[in-house]
Formats: sequence, C-alpha cells, structure tokens
Amino acid sequence: MALSKSELAALCKPPPPETSGFIMQQTMLRVKDPRRSLDFYSSVLGMRLLGKFDFPSMAFSLYFMGYAEEASIPKGDTERIAYLFRLPGTVELTHNYGTESDPDQAYHNGNSDPRGFGHIGISVPDVAEACRRFERLGVKFAKKPDDGKMKGLAFILDPDGYWIEILNAGRMVEIAKVD
Amino acid sequence: MALSKSELAALCKPPPPETSGFIMQQTMLRVKDPRRSLDFYSSVLGMRLLGKFDFPSMAFSLYFMGYAEEASIPKGDTERIAYLFRLPGTVELTHNYGTESDPDQAYHNGNSDPRGFGHIGISVPDVAEACRRFERLGVKFAKKPDDGKMKGLAFILDPDGYWIEILNAGRMVEIAKVD
Repeated sequence: MALSKSELAALCKPPPPETSGFIMQQTMLRVKDPRRSLDFYSSVLGMRLLGKFDFPSMAFSLYFMGYAEEASIPKGDTERIAYLFRLPGTVELTHNYGTESDPDQAYHNGNSDPRGFGHIGISVPDVAEACRRFERLGVKFAKKPDDGKMKGLAFILDPDGYWIEILNAGRMVEIAKVD
Repeated sequence: MALSKSELAALCKPPPPETSGFIMQQTMLRVKDPRRSLDFYSSVLGMRLLGKFDFPSMAFSLYFMGYAEEASIPKGDTERIAYLFRLPGTVELTHNYGTESDPDQAYHNGNSDPRGFGHIGISVPDVAEACRRFERLGVKFAKKPDDGKMKGLAFILDPDGYWIEILNAGRMVEIAKVD
C-alpha cells in the first residue's frame, strides 16, 4: 500500500553533503543493431550522438545519445567527453559485436517476466503532435495517447522493443489525479 | 564491429525541428520494497523525492527521485509536478503493492539472461571518495574502482540488485582510451 506522508518524510532525509555534485548521467541499454538504434534515437527522438567509444579487444562499442544544443557541446575531444559525462539524462547504447547478424538473438525489455526495468521517458511539448509524427514515421506503440485510463501519455517502442514513455509536464498534473 | 566515422555521420543526422524541446526525463525501475529503496536513493545517493503518485485502484505507487537544489523546486503542487516532469534524468521507482511482503518475489536486473537494460550511472566529483563512503555505509559492489581493466569507475548495487555505475567525468577521458 501507499506510504504515509510522515513515513516518507522519515525515509527521505535531505541529501548528505558528501553527495553534493552527484548527477544522474546515464541509462544503459544493450542494443542488437546500432545502425537501427542510432537512426531511431537521432531521427525519431531527436537526440545527438555525444560520444562513441570502441573497445575492440572486448568486442563492444558504446554510443552515448542525449539532448544538447550544438553550441553548448565543446569541440575538443577531451572537453567534449568531460561535458558528456556531466550531462544529466543521456542514454548509453551498448553494442556487443555480432548480435546484429544473429537471427536468434534478442534483448529483453523488462516488461514481461522476469520484470525489472520498465522504460525511459521523454518529456515533450505536445504529446498528441509528437505521436502523430511517430505514427507517420512508422513507430510502434505499446499505448497510444487515448488508450486506457491515463489519457494524454503514450508508450512507443524502440527498435529493440524497449518502452519509451512520451509525456507532457503540464498534462501530468491531471494524470497524477486519475485514480 | 565498430562503425566508421562516415557511417556514423550518415546515421546520426541533426535533430529534426519537430523534436525541439524534448527532454530525457525518466528511467523507470520496479522496486520490491519502497522503504529500502527510498532510503537508499536519498541517504546513499543523495537524491530527493520530487514526486509521489498513488494509484490505489491499480495497486501501485510511483516515487520520482532526482537531483535538484531545494531552492529550485516550486512549492505549489501543480508547479512542482510540472517542474519534475521537465527535469532531465530522474529515476521513477514503481512499487506494485504486496511485493515487499512476498518472500518469493524479486525483480531482474537485466545483467544475467535474459539481458537488456544494464545500469544507470551517477557522475560524481571523486569516485574513490564516493566509494569509500559507500563501503562505510555497507553498499554492495559489482565492481570496485580498482577492479578489472577499467580503473577509476565502479558499479554498486541498489537494494533490488540494479547496477549503478559510479563515474567521474574527468577520468572518463582516460578510461575511454583503455582498449
């Protein structure tokens, strides 16, 4: 059941001073084929490739995608990497070499057993408009904005089937009161 | 194998104007027991509880944790919720009622089969110092900073066993060249 306000206040103490400067910087998802994922995260979601790191001896590459104005991204490699790893809310796409050509390989999106991770979520200025565009682009939906009890928010699927919530900050005020 | 620079440039086009204003706002993780998770995310990681939403008829609650200065968080409920859903990099903890008292229930962290989601990552001012504190607090490690090939970054476990990378932006410049 839900926790009471007083129990929450006792559990959630103010941040310890030793955690000053901590930043929630990344969410890592393994992807089968970086070509289709990079296209989706850039062309569909509008993220930029902010960093790519290849580890050939361990047979994997990392692609960091995120929202950043071009003008704010430093030009030099060292400065750009330091900038990336201080940017809140990036998505780290991990490609283990060979998965893209293995017809039997697929990653698990966490929303069927065994469950765990649920989704990432993108806040957008207009959910209906964003979703009309996603439909035009052929994006798959787990929930369209008008489906179900929570109107005005959607879930789309990335190329590996990971769920991505599409939400609007203003609308969440009403949706939070739906029950 | 790794993608070439020219292939990357062709795949990752500049953000479409229709995605202007998109924000990577949340990563959702299901948690077995919100009491232990709220304590961990606030007392250990230093996040604040920025929003709590109860849906008793559907038997779940959502707890949004994130890094924000107290002075920047609006006081009114409506304004605070709108602020939260525009904040990049929050963690949404989902509690399905009853899991906390079911001894056979456990969530899957994505790092054993079936794999998918890997981890979230916190950028900190000093990895060694942060990890000494985590050790004092009894936090479990999947990788200590000096273990393995990638020195200077660590993975800790949250109460459900989800992996949390602890990294430093300045150090990542060297770690990216380790291979």
